[in-house]
Formats: sequence, C-alpha cells, structure tokens
Amino acid sequence: MPYELYYWPTIQGRGEFVRLALEEAAAEYVDVARTKNGMAAMTRMMESRQEVHPPFAPPFLKSGRLLIAQTANILLFLGARHRLAPADDAGRLWTHQLQLTIADWLVEIHDTHHPIASGLYYEDQKSESRRRAADFIKNRLPKYLGYFQRVMDANPRSDVYLVGARLTYADLSLFQTVAGLNFAFPRAMARIARRYPRVIALHDRVAERPRIASYLASERRIPFNQQGIFRHYPELDSSK
Amino acid sequence: MPYELYYWPTIQGRGEFVRLALEEAAAEYVDVARTKNGMAAMTRMMESRQEVHPPFAPPFLKSGRLLIAQTANILLFLGARHRLAPADDAGRLWTHQLQLTIADWLVEIHDTHHPIASGLYYEDQKSESRRRAADFIKNRLPKYLGYFQRVMDANPRSDVYLVGARLTYADLSLFQTVAGLNFAFPRAMARIARRYPRVIALHDRVAERPRIASYLASERRIPFNQQGIFRHYPELDSSK
Repeated sequence: MPYELYYWPTIQGRGEFVRLALEEAAAEYVDVARTKNGMAAMTRMMESRQEVHPPFAPPFLKSGRLLIAQTANILLFLGARHRLAPADDAGRLWTHQLQLTIADWLVEIHDTHHPIASGLYYEDQKSESRRRAADFIKNRLPKYLGYFQRVMDANPRSDVYLVGARLTYADLSLFQTVAGLNFAFPRAMARIARRYPRVIALHDRVAERPRIASYLASERRIPFNQQGIFRHYPELDSSK
Repeated sequence: MPYELYYWPTIQGRGEFVRLALEEAAAEYVDVARTKNGMAAMTRMMESRQEVHPPFAPPFLKSGRLLIAQTANILLFLGARHRLAPADDAGRLWTHQLQLTIADWLVEIHDTHHPIASGLYYEDQKSESRRRAADFIKNRLPKYLGYFQRVMDANPRSDVYLVGARLTYADLSLFQTVAGLNFAFPRAMARIARRYPRVIALHDRVAERPRIASYLASERRIPFNQQGIFRHYPELDSSK
C-alpha cells in the first residue's frame, strides 16, 4: 500500500522535506491534496473528531493505520524504514537532532517575511520584515551555516555527508534549505556561501543524485514561489 | 553515573522541560551550569572543535558517552529509558509529535516579546511585540489550547493524560507550558482557560504529583522571571 502524504498542494513548504525522503527512498506515495478531491480529504482528516491522533497542521503521513504528523517526526519514522538514518540509537538521535535544528532554522526563515502574524499578509508587516530579515542575514544565517559546516568538518567518516559515511534525511533537508535560501536571498548567499564550502558541496551533491535529479526535473517538484516558506522579496535580501 | 544537564543557569527556558522529566523519573542528574565553574564547562563544550556531535544551543544532556541536544530529542531519549512514553512505535511517535507541537508553540510564545531579533532587547522591539502578542492571544493561543483539549477529548484511555492511560513527558511539557502562560498572560488565561477544562485539569494534576510537587517547592526550580521564554509584560497581556 502506498504512503499517503497530506500537504498544501501549491507550495513546497514543510511537505517538501517529506517528499525528498520519499523520492530518495523510491517509496510509493500519493500526494493526496494534489489529486482530485484531495484537498477535501485533507480538510476532513484535519477536522475529524474521530481521529485519535489528530495532527495540529500538515504535513502528515498515513502509513497503513499509522497517522504521523510533524515533519521531523515523519522523517524519524521514514529514516528508520528506508535506511535514511543510522540504525543505532546514537546515530538515530544525532540525525534527528540535526533535523530539529533545521526545523528551528526554517521557522526563522519563514518569519523573515512574517514576523508579526502568519495570518496576515506580508504587505501588512513589511517594515517589521525588513528589520527581522536584516538581523537574520547578519546574525542567524551565518550562525546556522557555520554550524552545519562545523558538523561536516567534525564528521570523521565523510567529507560530503552530515552523519557517518552515508546519506541521511538530514542531508536531504539541508539540501532543501540551501536551495530555498538561494531562491530567497540570492545576494546574501552569493556573498557569504563561499565561507561554508562543505555545506554548498553537500547541496550540489544531493541535487545530482539520480533519484533527486529526476524528481527535481519532474512535475512532482512544485517550483519555489511567493506563497511558501522561502520567498524572494528583493527588499529583504542583502543590499551589499 | 548521573546525567549531566547543560543549560543556562538563571532561567527555566527549554531546560525546564528536561528537568521536569528527570525529576519525575527520579533520575540522578547534575545541573552543570548551576555548579561552581559549570558555566565555563558548558561554554567549553559548546565551542569545542573536538566534539563530533556538537550542539547548536543548550539544552544538552550527557549520558555516559552520548551527548544529546534539542529538547524534544532529549525527551525522546529519556522517555524510552524511564517509561515516560509508550514502548511501542505508534505511541512513541505520537508522544513525540505532541512534544514537537509544544516546541512550535514555545517559539511563538517566545516571539511575543522578541518578534524581530533574539539578540535585541525587548525594549528595542516593543511596538512590534504589541502587535505580535495581540495576534498570539487572539488567534494562536486558542488554537493551541483547543488542539490539546481535542487530543484529550479523543484519548479513549484516559481523561487526564494526553497519551494512553499513563503519564508521559508530553504531559509534563504541557503542564510547564500552561504554568508559563499563566505567568506571562494572566489576564488572557483567566478569560479563556475555562474553555479548555481538560488542559487545565492536566496542569493541576501534574503539579500535585509527589515528585513534581516536591521539585516545584525546592530550590532546584528556578522561579519564572523576565529573562526566560515566559515573561510577564502587562502591556502584552490581554486588556479585556
């Protein structure tokens, strides 16, 4: 039985981190909300009072009778099933720790264009966005990129992966984050990315993996756009 | 060998979610940064280039040779070891999912007083905080409280716990979040808490557990204050 992924049908968003893992695993899945009547099915599940494990928000994944939400939690589950994480406890926790740090980073990236309220339009929080994005580019972006560079420097078993000697879901997620940052903040990234050569090399390497390359070239990959987490507002990008 | 918990010594913060689990488990632990020279030890670990699993930020927990960071990840580890989560995969993932939702909520609570930059003082982002806190109280607070009420309504095995028939670390974390909200937003909570009776009952019940009650009355419990995640600024609390 194929997995059922439930996520907003018009953006990459958090669902994309799950899609990348499913694609790399060559797992069969249905991207439910992108099918006919799929949005209605997703809404029904979110509003159901019968569901004993209701999700707070998409994405969520149905696997047989299991319904799992929270991106990092879904990846914890898929990582163990599809060898996208080490099987031992220490490696499994370390991979998850990196994923949770990427999740924190992602909130900060989103909030560069929504610092006041996710329910308001960007246009209604534009001046606050300018302040938040400037701080993000100056302080937080180098801190996160530097952290992942340091993690790669410290990995005794690989120059190209975050964890041990093999690809994990954390690598896929770091790829997606760098790809999104290149879209959202091209000037800032052009200026500072060279300081984090391993992170950039990881991004490039993941993009070339056969299954990922084929996915990225397919219609299953929703393009970056101005409704997702990563948005390109030139006025929020670095001016230097 | 006792656990070593590393966290900022003067606030509850994210470390408190770990402390509550350790206290309920009656586990031996050292709150390292609160001991003599402990802050220097914590800083050394954070800056070490030898550490192959460096944490991005506190809290982190040392258990023998394991070094684990990210609050929810630490609780995933402790939950399995101290029966603070179900042993089966489905229950373990569900408990973790709830914890990750609490983690998201916590970021939003923090950002009510730091919507622009965590590196700036509250006083430098006060007008933005007013806007963000008003939206939080109106839209996000009821959404999260309502979600956890719904989870409790849907639990077929208990009226007083989130998961199955026994206490889990997610209950401890929901307790801490409600306690913090009562401190930070007393007027808003007084107005709306009655709509979520199970959530409030869970908070009260956890506070009365013998080990938790004894912990809360001890000097190990750092009081809420104006440096932590939960801060009481009357101007950010509901005016009605």
